[in-house]
Amino acid sequence: MRRVRFKDEDGSVLIGEMKGDEIEHEDNIYRVDEVDILAPVKPTKLVCIGLNYQDHAEETGREVPDRPKLFLKTPNTVAAHQDTIELLKGKKRIDHEAELGVVIGKRCKNVDQEDAMDKVMGFTCVNDLSNRDDQRREQNWVRGKAFDSAAPIGPVVAEKKHVPKDAEIRAIVNDEVRQSSTIDQLAFSIEELIDEITTYMTLERGDIISTGTPSGVGPIEDGDEVSIDIEGIGTLRNHFIKS
Amino acid sequence: MRRVRFKDEDGSVLIGEMKGDEIEHEDNIYRVDEVDILAPVKPTKLVCIGLNYQDHAEETGREVPDRPKLFLKTPNTVAAHQDTIELLKGKKRIDHEAELGVVIGKRCKNVDQEDAMDKVMGFTCVNDLSNRDDQRREQNWVRGKAFDSAAPIGPVVAEKKHVPKDAEIRAIVNDEVRQSSTIDQLAFSIEELIDEITTYMTLERGDIISTGTPSGVGPIEDGDEVSIDIEGIGTLRNHFIKS
Repeated sequence: MRRVRFKDEDGSVLIGEMKGDEIEHEDNIYRVDEVDILAPVKPTKLVCIGLNYQDHAEETGREVPDRPKLFLKTPNTVAAHQDTIELLKGKKRIDHEAELGVVIGKRCKNVDQEDAMDKVMGFTCVNDLSNRDDQRREQNWVRGKAFDSAAPIGPVVAEKKHVPKDAEIRAIVNDEVRQSSTIDQLAFSIEELIDEITTYMTLERGDIISTGTPSGVGPIEDGDEVSIDIEGIGTLRNHFIKS
Repeated sequence: MRRVRFKDEDGSVLIGEMKGDEIEHEDNIYRVDEVDILAPVKPTKLVCIGLNYQDHAEETGREVPDRPKLFLKTPNTVAAHQDTIELLKGKKRIDHEAELGVVIGKRCKNVDQEDAMDKVMGFTCVNDLSNRDDQRREQNWVRGKAFDSAAPIGPVVAEKKHVPKDAEIRAIVNDEVRQSSTIDQLAFSIEELIDEITTYMTLERGDIISTGTPSGVGPIEDGDEVSIDIEGIGTLRNHFIKS
């Protein structure tokens, strides 16, 4: 199933199943464009991976590191499908980064690789928005990566069976494909990431591991529509404006 | 008042007022050593400041930066007064860092310095535990600063009026004073920190800004008892063991 959280016209928050352009919830069917789609989960943290695709490491002039390069996004970063997002004021470059988000299904710590997939609820799309002006000047990427709405996620959490091992991942800005790869190009696998992260941190149900971005990252301009599309999950779309 | 969250003998979570060795809750009085003290708030994030005391910047061979150096601790880092904390396995050096924690009282964004103190619920003690083995090898201090229990906080949130502008702050390991300074030595003031952080991030009620540590940081060994003591707040004490 593809799990979607949404608000109906009365303002009730419901969890339904996305089927094409419709959402099923108990005996009701809603059209996607009639409801307010919410972030599919409410993570207490997003643990993100840098330089986890060979081609993206190369475009930044770096190498894939010898262990996963981790950074954090806090709950204030979460935004939903179809949200209009204001670009940070006074910054020259906010970039899109298309990423596969691994959604944790069970509280866990010290998970071995062989048990890792049992802890996964499913997958979602993440747009790891990056404020390059500040990221380049910071040791820890807080202004650079943890600003409000820096992590649009959604539109659904797709069960594992829906997402092929070599699923296509793309970022599309307006009508132009800017990033295009497949998730089997990950340098550190999902299992390796869960093992490594849970050596240090408890992951909670709803937490997200954002597994890194392929090459083709680039700036978002006033008025752009950015779509992150992953085979088997669907399309996360946001409109961006300058205030 | 000094606000304390605790669990009574029936397991109910209560919020009371700490008065010396006693806690008042409605018509009941509890002795502190009879109850289970909890973290005084449940932050969605801790925004921490590096190198914010001149003397600590000097001991690390660095200068106070031209703007606050930010890093993050996630909710899994929160630990409470009197918790016994297991030191991370296989690491040579986990350090204590005594810090004044500013507890946010109202959800806020884009706060000017002149309005900043209106958003503050009060102050608490923070022990910003630091895994130096990994911190030195990471761009973003995730393994280094955001491991489970890396942020003991408490024992209370003290209202602003209880804490003098030049309150003493100390770290005591067993019976030895290792860090000792006053909070008026902060390079960036509380008002400046709130202004800068909320330019980028919404702060939620219960979130904490941990304002940096004075000189004298040092390693914690198996069996140590570490106390963070701030005038007007009280003493946050934890026992550390190697597993």
